[in-house]
Amino acid sequence: MVRVERVRYKPVGVRDLLIEMKDLSELMIDLAYSAALFDSPALAEEVMEMERHIDTLTYLLNMNVMVAARDADDAESLVGVTKVARAADKISDAAADIAAIVLQRIGIHPIIREAFENVEEHLTRIGVKPDSVLAGKQLGELELAARMGVDVIAIRRGKKWIIDPEENETIEKADVLIVRGAPQGIEEIEGIAEGTIRELED
Amino acid sequence: MVRVERVRYKPVGVRDLLIEMKDLSELMIDLAYSAALFDSPALAEEVMEMERHIDTLTYLLNMNVMVAARDADDAESLVGVTKVARAADKISDAAADIAAIVLQRIGIHPIIREAFENVEEHLTRIGVKPDSVLAGKQLGELELAARMGVDVIAIRRGKKWIIDPEENETIEKADVLIVRGAPQGIEEIEGIAEGTIRELED
Repeated sequence: MVRVERVRYKPVGVRDLLIEMKDLSELMIDLAYSAALFDSPALAEEVMEMERHIDTLTYLLNMNVMVAARDADDAESLVGVTKVARAADKISDAAADIAAIVLQRIGIHPIIREAFENVEEHLTRIGVKPDSVLAGKQLGELELAARMGVDVIAIRRGKKWIIDPEENETIEKADVLIVRGAPQGIEEIEGIAEGTIRELED
Repeated sequence: MVRVERVRYKPVGVRDLLIEMKDLSELMIDLAYSAALFDSPALAEEVMEMERHIDTLTYLLNMNVMVAARDADDAESLVGVTKVARAADKISDAAADIAAIVLQRIGIHPIIREAFENVEEHLTRIGVKPDSVLAGKQLGELELAARMGVDVIAIRRGKKWIIDPEENETIEKADVLIVRGAPQGIEEIEGIAEGTIRELED
């Protein structure tokens, strides 16, 4: 049975919700392409998780817009915002459709690979093990870009997503990192997150 | 009345169709954001035009997939391709929804502008007048990036779209260019396309 959670109203800034929805939906497209390109169920699962999260954000946004609109003028000026939110939701659905191809094991036809081959961002998903040296460190002090040419573009912490994390964001154990970079750097950061590599090289 | 054209089967490579759909749908998202950010009906109209074009491509792709599939194995391996095509179609619909906000004059709420502000690509649409010095020139010889810091990322020629045109692509009069760049360079290329600026400066 499909798990459906009741979404309850809570006051959240419409601006923040819309920006999160837009950023997430764009990231999902890149993730879905990478999931198909590398036939990666782990990446595809993250896309599905994001899709559910965007559904919740859509409900929250629509409820907060309703509460914010006091009269006809407010309603007219805010209706465009709900349209943009719906567009982000549609984009996230499209990303989930692509991810589903990976999860349903339909098979990634060579034509699909060719279509996604020129995608600039090759992304991967990395889980941070409790004994990894990453846990407890701030992103800035890790200097991952300089050290191994990789970039953490998003962090999932339970059900919360942090897109484009700041330098002072501290990585916690059990975080899921979405990382972009060349294959060699990705391999290194995977080892570090797994805990098999115990030291950061200079 | 909505103009609906009959789409007739013609043999086109499924690979080429899928790549065009993917590239177009991604460009449309960027264009739609820019249309909203600058409240530009001209850009929004291009998005709408692209959306109709993608609809046609979807029909063509589905028909060519049907003809290509000779047996159950072919069908199984190709069904993922139609799913990706449908996802590109959905993304293009979302872009058209955003463009419609501009065209329906619903009004671009400041929250929408804030959400799109960080969009990396600021795009504009430029029509090439017959007496412009651009007409008849190859993109490469124009050296637009070096001269004025702008980049032609797509050309519309009637109903045909050329995404990421090559250096040896010749600009024709009446072409519509989608250009990315800083405001000053955009202003210059606009003058050149209009024919009010008659010479390319070094």
